[in-house]
Amino acid sequence: MAFSFELVKSCGDARAGVFHTPHGDIPTPVFAPVGTQATVKAVPPRDLVELGASLVLSNTYHLHLRPGSELVREMGGLHEFMRWPNPILTDSGGFQVFSLAKISRIDDEGVTFQSHIDGSRHRFTPELSMAVQENLGADIIMCFDQCPQPKDRAMVEAAVRRTQAWAARCREAHADDHRQALFGIQQGGIYEDLRAASSEALKQLDFPGYAIGGLAVGESKPEMYQTLDSCVQLLPDNKPRYLMGVGAPDDLAQAVLRGVDIFDCVLPTRLARHGAVFMPDGQVNIGRSAFIRDERPLQEDCDCYTCRTFSRAYLRHLVKARELLAHTLLSLHNIRFLIRHMEAMRRAILDNTLEHYVQSFLERYLQAA
Amino acid sequence: MAFSFELVKSCGDARAGVFHTPHGDIPTPVFAPVGTQATVKAVPPRDLVELGASLVLSNTYHLHLRPGSELVREMGGLHEFMRWPNPILTDSGGFQVFSLAKISRIDDEGVTFQSHIDGSRHRFTPELSMAVQENLGADIIMCFDQCPQPKDRAMVEAAVRRTQAWAARCREAHADDHRQALFGIQQGGIYEDLRAASSEALKQLDFPGYAIGGLAVGESKPEMYQTLDSCVQLLPDNKPRYLMGVGAPDDLAQAVLRGVDIFDCVLPTRLARHGAVFMPDGQVNIGRSAFIRDERPLQEDCDCYTCRTFSRAYLRHLVKARELLAHTLLSLHNIRFLIRHMEAMRRAILDNTLEHYVQSFLERYLQAA
Repeated sequence: MAFSFELVKSCGDARAGVFHTPHGDIPTPVFAPVGTQATVKAVPPRDLVELGASLVLSNTYHLHLRPGSELVREMGGLHEFMRWPNPILTDSGGFQVFSLAKISRIDDEGVTFQSHIDGSRHRFTPELSMAVQENLGADIIMCFDQCPQPKDRAMVEAAVRRTQAWAARCREAHADDHRQALFGIQQGGIYEDLRAASSEALKQLDFPGYAIGGLAVGESKPEMYQTLDSCVQLLPDNKPRYLMGVGAPDDLAQAVLRGVDIFDCVLPTRLARHGAVFMPDGQVNIGRSAFIRDERPLQEDCDCYTCRTFSRAYLRHLVKARELLAHTLLSLHNIRFLIRHMEAMRRAILDNTLEHYVQSFLERYLQAA
Repeated sequence: MAFSFELVKSCGDARAGVFHTPHGDIPTPVFAPVGTQATVKAVPPRDLVELGASLVLSNTYHLHLRPGSELVREMGGLHEFMRWPNPILTDSGGFQVFSLAKISRIDDEGVTFQSHIDGSRHRFTPELSMAVQENLGADIIMCFDQCPQPKDRAMVEAAVRRTQAWAARCREAHADDHRQALFGIQQGGIYEDLRAASSEALKQLDFPGYAIGGLAVGESKPEMYQTLDSCVQLLPDNKPRYLMGVGAPDDLAQAVLRGVDIFDCVLPTRLARHGAVFMPDGQVNIGRSAFIRDERPLQEDCDCYTCRTFSRAYLRHLVKARELLAHTLLSLHNIRFLIRHMEAMRRAILDNTLEHYVQSFLERYLQAA
């Protein structure tokens, strides 16, 4: 088996595991930084390896439009193209088609849309998403799905039906998980019965992993956590469970507690480009005048290059002077912060102390909120 | 002596040397990348060390306005602030005051100007430039000078007179070269007699190094080379000679041939931000469609991280997708290209083969021009 999920230890609903892939092992729970256009913004891949990143996500929608998946395939696939040695996950393109592009037409067959780059007309179908993702060659690929507003029941019902039909077509187009593992995506908004129906149907298709889609897209945090309370356990426990698009430190903790294994989010790099950094006491904007003369590192006990090397005063200067280096240095720290958070949670699961870790972490992280 | 210039070998007018400084030795001829605002744009200092950079220039005008030299001094000086372990050179602020700011008044005492950032009113004098540069704490600091249009004789004459008077005031304000070496700046435009007068007067002040100012600011390349033919040899041969603001690969070769030891320029990083790279066959824009499927590195025999790791096709993609990583990766290569060029010229001087190297280099580099 090219792919297999090894459950190492449970602690309540939380799990420590290893997802074995052709490009190496992914210890779970894991956070994947996002490399939208075949690059994690402002971070060279060797620095990403140093940060301990074992999985990177890249976006099918973006790469399909530019430079095109055929080109990436000709250049040896995404690993070779972006020189990333570890596992890669690509999304299906669905989320960006629905959130970023201008939709021209959506029907049961697929979606016609206009590129956000140049307005050119394109059409995505489940089959095309599979073909594009096969060209890209990521280790984990995703079914083409429809992600609705999570609290509009009629919309969610329709999206669940359509996502299900599309999942079957993706499974047929990509029946062999030897080179690439195809994950199914559960939808259902905040509605437990719809999540259950979606999961049941997906399980019939026997995917090597399952994602939870349609969360962190407009509902409140309590609503997301409440939905996770039930919807994670609806998924098979011998397969990895992936919560798409979630990366806030408190959300990661809440979702790991509830049994999620894999996460991705643009948050650490996007915040960095706005001068914001994760700290144990919460998120802070380093451009604040409080840091003008602060000679301390961002975080005393962080082992990233930024914290090992630079003062807050210098980082503040870079942010205020709009220097490119700020993006790189703050991204390094934010990514490392999340990876260390995941590493600590994995250790706590192995030590049976996860609840204590999460409680201490959240008490401190949310104190200012 | 904290500073001393050791002449290792001459080859025609060209020289291989070592400039000893409190932050380490600078083998000459040397090219210094520019870190305008206490950062070489998009390049972390550890990467700059890896590229073999032995000297970095930073701009007094910019740092005076933001974050302020007092702050930098409080943070331990520029080396500590930007975490750059090797020697630093600061310019005097004069060039930016005259080129970037809005001049309100210029008189023999100094210059009143408005900040290009927020329009706030400031005044630079030779004494203030010295105080600011002492706060910054670079190893090599520069006299406050006036850089005129090089071909307006009346303007150049006035600028030479004023620069001379200001040099004497800088020398008086900074008499002790123990911690920081103050370099004088020769002016004179393209006029040999004015260059000679400027040099003679400067030599009376006995500086530990001398710069050639007022070139590469509008005159043609042949005019610059012709001026260098005479003006370099007007400077003492037992002190380092620094040609300010020059960094095009062909200009570096022509100036080293004529006996210049130190250079700085924003060119490698500025070009990188526009997608342009130095190649042995000349400067190329990597965004060109010719590179869409080019799996080769930028330069086969280059040892920089970019060339060791990425294909032209990937770099082109980053440029076209306007990704931040392009700035970093192309800057790494362009800086390394110039440093390797300087290293090769130094070896050629030691081997007595400089003329051959320069001829071969220029033949190839300028072939497309």
